[in-house]
Amino acid sequence: MQRLGIGLIGSGFMGRSHAIAFRAVAGIFGLETVPVLELLADINRPTAERAAKALGFARATDDWQALIADPAVGLVDITTPNTLHKPMALAAIAAGKPVYCEKPLAATAADAQEMADAAKAAGVQTFVGFNYLKNPMLALAREVILNGEIGDLVSFRGIHAEDYMTDPLNPWTWRLDPAGGHGAVADIGSHILSVARFLMGDIVEVSGQIVTVVPKRPAGPGSHELRDVLVDDQARALIRFANGATGSIEASWVAAGRKMTLAFEVTGTKGTIAFDQERMNEIQIYFTGQRRGREGFKTILSGPDHPNYRDFCPAPGHHLGFNDMKTIEVKAIIDALAGGPAFMPDFQEAARIQAAVDAIVLSARERHWVTV
Amino acid sequence: MQRLGIGLIGSGFMGRSHAIAFRAVAGIFGLETVPVLELLADINRPTAERAAKALGFARATDDWQALIADPAVGLVDITTPNTLHKPMALAAIAAGKPVYCEKPLAATAADAQEMADAAKAAGVQTFVGFNYLKNPMLALAREVILNGEIGDLVSFRGIHAEDYMTDPLNPWTWRLDPAGGHGAVADIGSHILSVARFLMGDIVEVSGQIVTVVPKRPAGPGSHELRDVLVDDQARALIRFANGATGSIEASWVAAGRKMTLAFEVTGTKGTIAFDQERMNEIQIYFTGQRRGREGFKTILSGPDHPNYRDFCPAPGHHLGFNDMKTIEVKAIIDALAGGPAFMPDFQEAARIQAAVDAIVLSARERHWVTV
Amino acid sequence: MQRLGIGLIGSGFMGRSHAIAFRAVAGIFGLETVPVLELLADINRPTAERAAKALGFARATDDWQALIADPAVGLVDITTPNTLHKPMALAAIAAGKPVYCEKPLAATAADAQEMADAAKAAGVQTFVGFNYLKNPMLALAREVILNGEIGDLVSFRGIHAEDYMTDPLNPWTWRLDPAGGHGAVADIGSHILSVARFLMGDIVEVSGQIVTVVPKRPAGPGSHELRDVLVDDQARALIRFANGATGSIEASWVAAGRKMTLAFEVTGTKGTIAFDQERMNEIQIYFTGQRRGREGFKTILSGPDHPNYRDFCPAPGHHLGFNDMKTIEVKAIIDALAGGPAFMPDFQEAARIQAAVDAIVLSARERHWVTV
Amino acid sequence: MQRLGIGLIGSGFMGRSHAIAFRAVAGIFGLETVPVLELLADINRPTAERAAKALGFARATDDWQALIADPAVGLVDITTPNTLHKPMALAAIAAGKPVYCEKPLAATAADAQEMADAAKAAGVQTFVGFNYLKNPMLALAREVILNGEIGDLVSFRGIHAEDYMTDPLNPWTWRLDPAGGHGAVADIGSHILSVARFLMGDIVEVSGQIVTVVPKRPAGPGSHELRDVLVDDQARALIRFANGATGSIEASWVAAGRKMTLAFEVTGTKGTIAFDQERMNEIQIYFTGQRRGREGFKTILSGPDHPNYRDFCPAPGHHLGFNDMKTIEVKAIIDALAGGPAFMPDFQEAARIQAAVDAIVLSARERHWVTV
Repeated sequence: MQRLGIGLIGSGFMGRSHAIAFRAVAGIFGLETVPVLELLADINRPTAERAAKALGFARATDDWQALIADPAVGLVDITTPNTLHKPMALAAIAAGKPVYCEKPLAATAADAQEMADAAKAAGVQTFVGFNYLKNPMLALAREVILNGEIGDLVSFRGIHAEDYMTDPLNPWTWRLDPAGGHGAVADIGSHILSVARFLMGDIVEVSGQIVTVVPKRPAGPGSHELRDVLVDDQARALIRFANGATGSIEASWVAAGRKMTLAFEVTGTKGTIAFDQERMNEIQIYFTGQRRGREGFKTILSGPDHPNYRDFCPAPGHHLGFNDMKTIEVKAIIDALAGGPAFMPDFQEAARIQAAVDAIVLSARERHWVTV
Repeated sequence: MQRLGIGLIGSGFMGRSHAIAFRAVAGIFGLETVPVLELLADINRPTAERAAKALGFARATDDWQALIADPAVGLVDITTPNTLHKPMALAAIAAGKPVYCEKPLAATAADAQEMADAAKAAGVQTFVGFNYLKNPMLALAREVILNGEIGDLVSFRGIHAEDYMTDPLNPWTWRLDPAGGHGAVADIGSHILSVARFLMGDIVEVSGQIVTVVPKRPAGPGSHELRDVLVDDQARALIRFANGATGSIEASWVAAGRKMTLAFEVTGTKGTIAFDQERMNEIQIYFTGQRRGREGFKTILSGPDHPNYRDFCPAPGHHLGFNDMKTIEVKAIIDALAGGPAFMPDFQEAARIQAAVDAIVLSARERHWVTV
Repeated sequence: MQRLGIGLIGSGFMGRSHAIAFRAVAGIFGLETVPVLELLADINRPTAERAAKALGFARATDDWQALIADPAVGLVDITTPNTLHKPMALAAIAAGKPVYCEKPLAATAADAQEMADAAKAAGVQTFVGFNYLKNPMLALAREVILNGEIGDLVSFRGIHAEDYMTDPLNPWTWRLDPAGGHGAVADIGSHILSVARFLMGDIVEVSGQIVTVVPKRPAGPGSHELRDVLVDDQARALIRFANGATGSIEASWVAAGRKMTLAFEVTGTKGTIAFDQERMNEIQIYFTGQRRGREGFKTILSGPDHPNYRDFCPAPGHHLGFNDMKTIEVKAIIDALAGGPAFMPDFQEAARIQAAVDAIVLSARERHWVTV
Repeated sequence: MQRLGIGLIGSGFMGRSHAIAFRAVAGIFGLETVPVLELLADINRPTAERAAKALGFARATDDWQALIADPAVGLVDITTPNTLHKPMALAAIAAGKPVYCEKPLAATAADAQEMADAAKAAGVQTFVGFNYLKNPMLALAREVILNGEIGDLVSFRGIHAEDYMTDPLNPWTWRLDPAGGHGAVADIGSHILSVARFLMGDIVEVSGQIVTVVPKRPAGPGSHELRDVLVDDQARALIRFANGATGSIEASWVAAGRKMTLAFEVTGTKGTIAFDQERMNEIQIYFTGQRRGREGFKTILSGPDHPNYRDFCPAPGHHLGFNDMKTIEVKAIIDALAGGPAFMPDFQEAARIQAAVDAIVLSARERHWVTV
């Protein structure tokens, strides 16, 4: 049995989700390598101490550089606000340690590429947390596509819609800080772009549109001071893929009523696949050539015949949850570190996703198509 | 009781649907004006005779000009292939007779505008058959929007997807004739654009994308000769509306498995409305401000509290069908002819829809945003 | 072209629905026999006159016996409250005229059987309006079953749930009059029993449960006087079918929120069919033996490959509505009168349905299983 | 920090699920008491050793009595075939140790009651694994009911349908051993009965129906020898509840295509709640009194405003999975052991559930209603 010392930087939504996954993964998958929650860094000592206790880390620190240098830390795990991803990841790479970083990887595609290049030069493995890709239903969709079961790809429609910024009184947060990159197009648009690339391959060019719906927000919770919003609340893009298919993506964090719509429809010459993360344990597939009068989309429920499901449950239709996708992600990281299949998406893939984000924003500003 | 003599040109899918509606309308709505199926014109005498008998018309002709001139014909109803709409409509207008024409109105926006201008100059009423707009659920959506129930409009996503051209062996038809206008973007894209305008108002500018997926098709049924397809199979556009909202539309007739997806999602600052014609008797609405832990989209079934439903059925959830929407359309035409509320969409509105179609195609070719 | 003179007794919800269907049917189906709305009878002269005008009947009367005797009346159509079905139908039979009667056929199975026997003795054709059976999706379900596509039948679950009596202030109506028969179990339970028999065949025995949920209701609209409710608001039964399958049915008119749930699930040894009238244009079917990891229920949309759909519309997914089912029913009646296939359900079938209703009530009272 | 030593007997589907939950629970909920996987017992030494390693237990044994006696074991967790529940639980109770046992608790209600009585006499806490009750959506349903949000309860319809025994070639297993109790009615019927009691309260009487659909099965995997099936494959019952409401339940393990349908509909005088475990993260609720023309069922997605969700994820619509429900169950056990709220369902509640199972079977055999 091997031990993998985890050094987690940041302890918010994603930090907690990573910790849950690292604690669960060895039991679920019967791994030889067991992750150990060694060290947690957060912005100040008391916060870090509290989080370490709550999440089960052995030690805490307010010094992320010390965390990277710590000999017990074998994997540097970054879940901080976006602006901090780059210096932390570069430091970890410089220390020769594999890095697991939340999306979006960086504020700009250039930064993301610099990070990817550094990792490549240093021979360091990298992992980016586009967790929705790890859903067995998405693995099934990809398998169906790669098998040619729906023929040649023709069309992709992708939507990521949530409503956590619908209320104009929701205050300004670090997600609105332009120093950290774009708005909804980066924060959640990157998810649907990651799906687009996962299923359809390279994006060649885009025509984008970005919109700030709520121009000012309270400077903080309960604040009467208003602060300008300089990033987008919603974004859309037309897309041309390298394989000749076309499509569109859309991202919005002001989509009233939509809680976790990460939806897509892929059409091929012989069928169509439709999915919505709000019903993450099912997928709709239509195959041409069905008997007349019996044609229809199938609703397939997740089950043990789909990738990674059986480790959670031997019976179909019993459901995986959000944290289970993260557990699958972490399992794939540990496999990769143990010499198994390369993990995707890595920094290079995340840089390509970020390049699409940047191209959408540029296109929107210049009002014409832009090559990615 | 008044009689309105109907002169129908064309007897295909839409011609038959019009005939069914004209026969049903007076009974359903208890109208004072009763449409009478006077005269049917089709391409040759035997076809016209057969169709007249099947559809219940008193007389038949192979001369559409004679039909327009016929004194018993009070309403000229055009359901021919698109290329013929213009000369027929202009002739009817010249004869001072009201015209009911199927969509798309013309091959180009210029033609459509010329037709609208002619009607206006002649003081002739015009009616265009965008039947899906007459669904009580769409009337409800518009009412919810106009009431401000979902706040200020933010976003529109519209999709019209069918699969009747998915099979590459489906032969060339008049719908593929560039002389009749564009492809899917005009044929069904015009439907979703009509919905966009109905719910959101004027379209200011678009960025479009058009694609021919199947480049050659058999020249006719069973033919081994292949003929080039010069129009689009699928189209998409980003949209900016005059009210400041943004959105997108998509049209495809190669969407494997989609039989009658005319779907939209309208988001406002205080709620969201979602609809799909494949479930035409229900609509989903989310209102912000619901009690915590009880927030959700409502599924509203069509019923007698919605416009025009009660005339068909006094009980909710019992369902209207496709032909019922056409009956509502025809009822609104008869009301307008009797001095009631003006009918929409008329030729002028159809010209605006066509202008959006043309702008999408132009934008796709020039690869930048185009003002409508 | 033949003419079939229609004599309609009653002009409420169903009377109007019949009139709409008779007006539409010849045009939709291109029939040689055209129904003519000859004579309408209602409770008093002014009501009958108004209804005749509104529904398009040539003449009106307050004397239903005169209607039956009228030489222009070729089909006697009974849509009155249930208590009147028997004397009217027997009179029509005595006059040798075919009878079309709304469900439930009679207050008791004995009465219904007497009516069926009288018709048989007189050689008169009879037709009962269980309109939901005429939905192409139900015809498809039956075809799938008869083909053996889901193997041997194992189970049936049927539900008819509406909420029109949920509000305890909804006043007493003729539907609550015990002289007209039982309550929900007869009014709507008969529908789901008709479906059970249509799909599964004869019912051998039942164990029933009936419940009056609202014990008193206002004597009339706005009345402060309360009147006892002596019939059931909801009913359930366990069922054993002659083919060895088992199942259950349930009927409720106090099912808050359910507008037109006529739902069933039929399970066989090789598959399952599920349907809900609230989505009357689709049906779910599962077949065993699908490829592993691709198993799922198909959602089949109604279309021209399903019985009777194409006459309404050549394109799939476009939807039939409630009145269209009634039009199909009326078409089958006219076919039967013209020597075509026998119409089902006739009085004999309706008597068997009523026998099941009565058995459920008896079983509920005696608290043990009862043979039908 | 306290330690709770877990002694697990059995290592199949449920044993593994318990182990996953015990490993996860302290991290998810930040518990003061940490379960420690001390000892695993299975039928023979090698099996036990393998399972202990795979599930993360410190030690293994083939002697369940030794496990109960082991001083490091603070909670005896029984996940063996049903026939073994009773002797094991009684031994644990005799040893004064709290017992966590999978459902159904025993082969008969008498056995279950004996176990409950023994636990009560010994003052030992007991816990039964009806995991679906721990879904936040069911907690929400109960809260809505207890708040009176849907008025007085009128009706309950419960279904548990799976298809794991549909194939007649699926071999005989311990689930079919009559010594372990009844068939589907006990194995999964107990689940839906647990839901019925959770939401509706005590069951007063039932009329039941039980059916063996597949009369013989291969004696073992691949065996050509056929063995009689002496337990039911499907069961149904009509129900009267102590609160005056009525309803039905149904259980089937031969429901082709149904993977994990644990569905219910609860109707009250002011609303209705509908749920299906195949979409375990959503629930449908209808409230009477909505604005006219805006009435509809709401689809509520699980989120942090619902019980126990926030500990897994701070964002709504992100989904819990099957194992998460088990983690909530285990959390409630640990809370109860720490002096928190009493855990339900305990042995006494499980005995009442089993009494309903037995009453259904007795009623089915005697063909009349039976008091529970």
